Amino acid sequence: MDHVTIIGNGHMARAIAVRMLRARHSVQIIGRNSEKTQALVEFLGAGARGDEEGTPVEGNIVFLAVPFLEGKKTVSTYGESLAGKVIVDISNPVDMATFDHLLTPAGTSAAESIALLAPPSSNVVKAFNTCFAKSLEVGQVAGVPLDVFIAGDSEAAKAKVSAVAAASGLRVIDVGPLRRARELESMMLLVMGLQANPEHVGFNWDTSLKILP
Amino acid sequence: MDHVTIIGNGHMARAIAVRMLRARHSVQIIGRNSEKTQALVEFLGAGARGDEEGTPVEGNIVFLAVPFLEGKKTVSTYGESLAGKVIVDISNPVDMATFDHLLTPAGTSAAESIALLAPPSSNVVKAFNTCFAKSLEVGQVAGVPLDVFIAGDSEAAKAKVSAVAAASGLRVIDVGPLRRARELESMMLLVMGLQANPEHVGFNWDTSLKILP
Repeated sequence: MDHVTIIGNGHMARAIAVRMLRARHSVQIIGRNSEKTQALVEFLGAGARGDEEGTPVEGNIVFLAVPFLEGKKTVSTYGESLAGKVIVDISNPVDMATFDHLLTPAGTSAAESIALLAPPSSNVVKAFNTCFAKSLEVGQVAGVPLDVFIAGDSEAAKAKVSAVAAASGLRVIDVGPLRRARELESMMLLVMGLQANPEHVGFNWDTSLKILP
Repeated sequence: MDHVTIIGNGHMARAIAVRMLRARHSVQIIGRNSEKTQALVEFLGAGARGDEEGTPVEGNIVFLAVPFLEGKKTVSTYGESLAGKVIVDISNPVDMATFDHLLTPAGTSAAESIALLAPPSSNVVKAFNTCFAKSLEVGQVAGVPLDVFIAGDSEAAKAKVSAVAAASGLRVIDVGPLRRARELESMMLLVMGLQANPEHVGFNWDTSLKILP
């Protein structure tokens, strides 16, 4: 069984942890604010443990459930201790003040820039960035499983993340190499802008991007 | 009532024409191959007429239902006769040989490059590029109306296209200014790649990109 570490203790960390526990994986939560981490671990119950920032990463699958720029720092800080691990980048490098542009230059992606910082023997996978926390925690939207779009250059690493996502009740769609993260992140600039726009009364950070049927 | 002209006589032209007739708009089809245009007009029945390439555009809403590069040529050729009209760009500037990159430079879009060629008094609207012909012709996928993502810099032009799309039974999502076409086109590089990939047996150019619920 794969061990899972989640860096972060916010809404996305909680939603991913709920799904991983549903898939019967134990979860290590590493968070900055110990009280918040402890509260999350209590909410999650059996199978979850909380650790302070800087604690060694136990999981062979590591979710970066923090904002993009913080994720970059995390990968740099943990450095070689991430060697050999599967690093899952869930971030959307969206300018949250304007929802008009990405924080990454055109022609690249957050996932690729994180991969450049990670140890050569690790493998970065893009996944879960199109899922919002509310619906991810439930695992379904409108009565159908959420889609998890997954991109990466290592088939073995994608297979690991796909397996845990599928075991947690989600539909996995492998969209190809890590550079496909460009399109996944780009689309979320648009989708997140819709959620933030008060004119779209039906979009409240609880929707899901699906390929139907 | 708005008059609608569709440039093109292929699958997308047919699907858009079916929807426009459903919305009780008459449709002018302008196509290169007269026999194909005639066959389409006969299929469509009352409310549709066919004209040869070069025939003046009657509609105040003009759909470019041709590939991106051909759409650019069409706009250049029709030139000033498109003045004052709403031009709907439905294209996906995807490299269909590799599905690995777009034909447009990063940081721009097909819609914006078509707008640069169109008369200043016309208004280019991006719409329908996320719809595939099969599901668009039906108007629904998995029992729910298709989403039509619409982007443009003129609120009046978007209102016109939104009205005809909504009247045809589709759900319209206004995603903002014309530059949002970058994200809509980018995402379709990925979605079209999935349809073309034989490993994804469930994706056969008949899916639909939806925001649920």
